[in-house]
Amino acid sequence: MFQFMTSARIIFGEGVLERSMSIIPQLGYSVLLVSGTDTSRTLPVVNFLKAQNMRYQHVSISGEPYLKVVEEIAQQARKFQPDLVVAMGGGSVIDTGKALSAIVPNKGSLYDYVEVVGRSVPLKTKPLPFIAITTTAGSGAEVTRNAVLKSAQDRIKVSLRNPDLIPDVAIVDPALTYGSDPATSGRGAMDAFTHLMEAYVCSTPNPLVDMICEEGLKRISRSILAACLDDNHKAREDISFAALLGGMAANNANLGAAHGLAAAIGGKLDAPHGVITARLAPFVMKENLVAASLSQRNDIIQRYLKVSELLTGKKNASANEAIEWVETMLEKLHIPQLAEYGVCLTSFEEVARDSLKSNSIKGNPIPLTQERLVFILNQVCRCQANVPITLPPIHYNDVYYLTETEMDKGRETT
Amino acid sequence: MFQFMTSARIIFGEGVLERSMSIIPQLGYSVLLVSGTDTSRTLPVVNFLKAQNMRYQHVSISGEPYLKVVEEIAQQARKFQPDLVVAMGGGSVIDTGKALSAIVPNKGSLYDYVEVVGRSVPLKTKPLPFIAITTTAGSGAEVTRNAVLKSAQDRIKVSLRNPDLIPDVAIVDPALTYGSDPATSGRGAMDAFTHLMEAYVCSTPNPLVDMICEEGLKRISRSILAACLDDNHKAREDISFAALLGGMAANNANLGAAHGLAAAIGGKLDAPHGVITARLAPFVMKENLVAASLSQRNDIIQRYLKVSELLTGKKNASANEAIEWVETMLEKLHIPQLAEYGVCLTSFEEVARDSLKSNSIKGNPIPLTQERLVFILNQVCRCQANVPITLPPIHYNDVYYLTETEMDKGRETT
Repeated sequence: MFQFMTSARIIFGEGVLERSMSIIPQLGYSVLLVSGTDTSRTLPVVNFLKAQNMRYQHVSISGEPYLKVVEEIAQQARKFQPDLVVAMGGGSVIDTGKALSAIVPNKGSLYDYVEVVGRSVPLKTKPLPFIAITTTAGSGAEVTRNAVLKSAQDRIKVSLRNPDLIPDVAIVDPALTYGSDPATSGRGAMDAFTHLMEAYVCSTPNPLVDMICEEGLKRISRSILAACLDDNHKAREDISFAALLGGMAANNANLGAAHGLAAAIGGKLDAPHGVITARLAPFVMKENLVAASLSQRNDIIQRYLKVSELLTGKKNASANEAIEWVETMLEKLHIPQLAEYGVCLTSFEEVARDSLKSNSIKGNPIPLTQERLVFILNQVCRCQANVPITLPPIHYNDVYYLTETEMDKGRETT
Repeated sequence: MFQFMTSARIIFGEGVLERSMSIIPQLGYSVLLVSGTDTSRTLPVVNFLKAQNMRYQHVSISGEPYLKVVEEIAQQARKFQPDLVVAMGGGSVIDTGKALSAIVPNKGSLYDYVEVVGRSVPLKTKPLPFIAITTTAGSGAEVTRNAVLKSAQDRIKVSLRNPDLIPDVAIVDPALTYGSDPATSGRGAMDAFTHLMEAYVCSTPNPLVDMICEEGLKRISRSILAACLDDNHKAREDISFAALLGGMAANNANLGAAHGLAAAIGGKLDAPHGVITARLAPFVMKENLVAASLSQRNDIIQRYLKVSELLTGKKNASANEAIEWVETMLEKLHIPQLAEYGVCLTSFEEVARDSLKSNSIKGNPIPLTQERLVFILNQVCRCQANVPITLPPIHYNDVYYLTETEMDKGRETT
């Protein structure tokens, strides 16, 4: 177990959840609790809130955080008037909690505040205190300052972004990932990998980010298979820590083309973010290496050589070995092909054009043209269906459930 | 240049001071500006405040931050009612600013809030926003959550400690250290070294701290001489970054016996903190290695071997080589002997006993008895005058100057 004070107070280690819950009443009395649909996972928190006779409203969501859903929850939550928000789950749950912490104390609609499809109005009132308890090792959303939300009508992913959105307390208890199935674990670990890899080679060098990425990539390399395939607990701890580092890195770097393209694809399709970025990664790496070589950008090539060294543990590994490492992991961890989600049915031109508007693409170590991004998409799909046709529908019905609110309990009544 | 969002927003890089000052008006209109006595150094900030027609009160202090002095400044500053505090200087100046940011908006005396000699009352009102601009590479105070203050009457150093005391913005511009004399530079760099070394071997393992220390020790090793003796700018940047890392590490670790003993010595004598810890370091390292060996604590020995590897760049360096590295640096950088400050005149028993009450001593990798701490002090002094006699007087007259306050200017009047 360790504590690290940043904006986030990060509490990390096996079993820290039980020991950290006493922080909740320090931040207020009325809690908006956000979780996934498997509410059995939040039982320790619910039991704690009950034992403390605290007011709480529990909302559980399924799937991705849709603007419309978050908006509806916020309207309910404003009536409840929480003092703080606690989110316990994966990246989608945490980002939902993050968005709620921001808009519940502010007037108006979520659409006023989000980027791209909204008006990007700055928050007038500071977000509510927010505690993020991550149950997966992947997104690193527990230490990032943006909530990624999905607009179903616009088929686009947008961010609510503010330095005050970094969770006040991030609780990372690797024990919560023990027993997780190999498919979910693999997607999470590869999500963390892609954050670390793109942040490490990105166009905005930052020695703090470098340090974080080197440590993270080393741990991913040594523990990804034992964690995801064998449920080895020591390895799980490594991956939880690497995912945390990935979040810290992503929060302080522009990423790159894999994340830029994923932002565009993720809005159009119901495909897990971690799968999209991981499947794009080797093709983006190849393309960047070719572009760097043509432009004689030896600095970029050196970066990729360092990634290879960190992943393979070999001093003189070639840049290609990093790509091979990624491809091997994608196979061993059974990361689905993007074609399975319908990527080949999208307009590659449109995806590439949208991705060029993203924040992430600015971080790519070397600028890539729309044409080269289309080339990457063609490679990823291994198909030629590069034409706009009807995309599969996005599901967002029945995505949240509000439990009976424990509104009338007071400390004094028990 | 890079930005890293933590509780502190850290802005680092050559020339960032000029580019960062626009943050000041974002945090308020009335500024309490704290600096050292060479007020020419703060001219860029003063000129900026004037150009923006902001209200400001400028206070310059000399020497260490005495409780009495901080208390007096706070009383003046409360009349001025600043919105925020900006401190520009070394560790003492930053810690003074930090303490002022905490007590100006709170009622009562500084003595209510400090540890040991005070009542450790928690702050009722949050500290004022605080910007730390470091002009030295050493203390890392720009990212720590405690202000180290000195009580002249009690001859002791005490802390005002609170997570909210971490500066909101830390500006680290290595250019501010260019041209600094070798003696000051060497003391600062060795201060940073001791933070990193003690945090790395300390009893509370923390992988984030480890990562920070490894990076910091590598940079110290490769750049300390070129920075301090040759004023090499690239090397200066390395040392500024290492000092920042040292602050981050110290903020998240209990340190060890060098810092524990230094806390006790620093209260009794006018000796720079960085000199005390650095001169103690090799003797503490030796003692810890002996103690670890006797207790078969191979984990501790491995840690020191890693320190050796980082400092010497050699895979199989012996633990002794780390100690030799420190001794060589102390000589090459002309770090004064502690005997010059009167350490040999103190009661070693009293110093050892006081140090055992410190927070830092709890971080020593292995507990050391009072007897062994006295042994270390005997070694440091290379003298036998281990008896309590009258200590040299502590000077704290004329330690601050309040400049004419720019109180009546308003945006609207110019």
